[in-house]
Amino acid sequence: MSEFGFTLLAADGAARRGRIATAHGTVETPAFMPVGTAGTVKGMLPGAVAETGAEILLGNTYHLMLRPGAERVERLGGLHRMMGWNRPILTDSGGFQVMSLTGLRKLTEDAVIFRSHIDGSEHVLSPERSIEIQRMLDADITMALDECTPHPATREQTAASLALSMRWAARSKSAFTRRPGYGLFGIVQGGVYLDLRSQSVADLTEIGFDGYAIGGLAVGEGQETMFAVLDHTAPLLPADRPRYLMGVGTPADLVGAAMRGIDMFDCVMPTRSGRTGQAFTRRGKLNIRNARHQDDPRPLDADCRCPACRQFGRAYLHHLHRAEEMLGPILLTWHNLTYYQDLMAGLRAAIEDGRLAEFAVAFAAEQGLGDIERL
Amino acid sequence: MSEFGFTLLAADGAARRGRIATAHGTVETPAFMPVGTAGTVKGMLPGAVAETGAEILLGNTYHLMLRPGAERVERLGGLHRMMGWNRPILTDSGGFQVMSLTGLRKLTEDAVIFRSHIDGSEHVLSPERSIEIQRMLDADITMALDECTPHPATREQTAASLALSMRWAARSKSAFTRRPGYGLFGIVQGGVYLDLRSQSVADLTEIGFDGYAIGGLAVGEGQETMFAVLDHTAPLLPADRPRYLMGVGTPADLVGAAMRGIDMFDCVMPTRSGRTGQAFTRRGKLNIRNARHQDDPRPLDADCRCPACRQFGRAYLHHLHRAEEMLGPILLTWHNLTYYQDLMAGLRAAIEDGRLAEFAVAFAAEQGLGDIERL
Repeated sequence: MSEFGFTLLAADGAARRGRIATAHGTVETPAFMPVGTAGTVKGMLPGAVAETGAEILLGNTYHLMLRPGAERVERLGGLHRMMGWNRPILTDSGGFQVMSLTGLRKLTEDAVIFRSHIDGSEHVLSPERSIEIQRMLDADITMALDECTPHPATREQTAASLALSMRWAARSKSAFTRRPGYGLFGIVQGGVYLDLRSQSVADLTEIGFDGYAIGGLAVGEGQETMFAVLDHTAPLLPADRPRYLMGVGTPADLVGAAMRGIDMFDCVMPTRSGRTGQAFTRRGKLNIRNARHQDDPRPLDADCRCPACRQFGRAYLHHLHRAEEMLGPILLTWHNLTYYQDLMAGLRAAIEDGRLAEFAVAFAAEQGLGDIERL
Repeated sequence: MSEFGFTLLAADGAARRGRIATAHGTVETPAFMPVGTAGTVKGMLPGAVAETGAEILLGNTYHLMLRPGAERVERLGGLHRMMGWNRPILTDSGGFQVMSLTGLRKLTEDAVIFRSHIDGSEHVLSPERSIEIQRMLDADITMALDECTPHPATREQTAASLALSMRWAARSKSAFTRRPGYGLFGIVQGGVYLDLRSQSVADLTEIGFDGYAIGGLAVGEGQETMFAVLDHTAPLLPADRPRYLMGVGTPADLVGAAMRGIDMFDCVMPTRSGRTGQAFTRRGKLNIRNARHQDDPRPLDADCRCPACRQFGRAYLHHLHRAEEMLGPILLTWHNLTYYQDLMAGLRAAIEDGRLAEFAVAFAAEQGLGDIERL
């Protein structure tokens, strides 16, 4: 089994074209990771997810630890085997979901204590337990447990939260058992305070991780602020390690962040939006439930290779969503994931060819984004 | 375009191995038609339905006339084109669903007047309108509109209902415009009264149809009574036309009915059961939601070729159904449809080879059916 690692293949400005090697294969970057919350990308067979071009999935520690349970997943041979996905998997630490359980959780220096949203049972998630769970899931990439600082937060609140996250990062590193092909990522916090972001990078690189995530963004601060944080933070990170922007985002977010040197992304947007009838296309977003589609025989996106666009028209997709037929969410999820993966493939090719600036201009034009300076 | 027709290829006792030619291709019989209620087999892409071995689908006139509307389907090029299924389609007349709307409908000599379950709007379904809708849907096989006699019903009630159905059958025939490759089926009614069944067959053959359905069974009369009605009725039907047993049934129903000379079946059982976690297997039925499956890595059915059985274990399928993940219903639907189609393929091969009796014995044994005499 090969060592876990990152190879930088090409650069265009701050943007990077790379390759991550893991126990379950390689990932071309910039990469978008579909979210497979509870051991499944909702509505998609693993083979269909691979067909979209995805090379790595994200699994949610919080959901999987509660159901079917980390020990059970381990007995079943790990998450890859259980869900029939033989390529790389990154798991989050569980922290983000647990911290979102307002009223159901208690945070201490040692751990976060919370009640399951499924059956109300009490659970304790510490850095050590999070790492143990992710090992049982057999994640190729394990995330350190951190506190997700709420937004907005004062500088003092953010600094205190960051300090706890950095202590937990060190504990996560100690708890992580190195195995060939498996990597551990630390998470840069610090909110919108650039000096705290610098402090966080210094703390994490001192501990030493196989990759670095940027957390606490896309939580309401706005794209401009997010890009400002990336402009400041990304250059501070080690060039020989992958950089992962957590929970982001819109197609424009991905293009802008890749231009700032981000290598990895995850977001529920393509899957969740697909289930509610929102489609991302080469002409911008549309809602297929809108009555204007009810007699339209044209495909969602004439340039798309997915089954929703190759086999069906908008009128039919509209009908499926109005009739609440399962095939509606299935097809729009498939389409949105294909759109996202094709966007990433376009970014990778543009970086390789040194034409990322032109790519971004064309992208902004087709999306009807007036102010391409923002990307 | 070839003529609509039925070719009898082989027989084994009363059982028939045949082929139906339609405008959209041929159907090997005995055949099972998955139900695509509202223009989709729930949770399945058309290509996946074809992979299971299905050659013909059933569409529901009632659902399609209300949403997306027959005129709209016609504008979109017909049901095949709209839903991406280029093989034969049979549509029901709408009568069964409309008659099931207790309290919302009124039956007259001319038509049935009912209110939509979707928006409460009033609609009129006459034999002429049903035939017109099915033409707009572009059904390869159109069903005459009849009254579905409730069960239980007295002989008098059944006779009166039958008489109306036979008058409607004649009106359906008059309203049907003959086109090459398109056929019209009449429906034998008469409940559990064998002399009324004989009368119905005489009336329908006098009118003349391209195929004959047997309706009003599997409504609570029990398998033994159903088989008795088939034993009486099937031999009365013209040998050169396909025979369709409507809304049936369990795997054992299909085997027993095929042995009695039935060529076509439809039922929501494999799809609806799949969505609620019921799986049909070569060892009988199981409910994947049952806790005994939660740690079981074995496939649902080791001899099945479907993705649910080839790629996943019972523990994972259990998890998907418990977590109410869409992939759970998708996979069990896929499995059940594959099981049903493989059963039909087995029946066809057994009839061809003149070993249907042995096939039925083996089927009853693997299903744990003690009393194979009943089949």
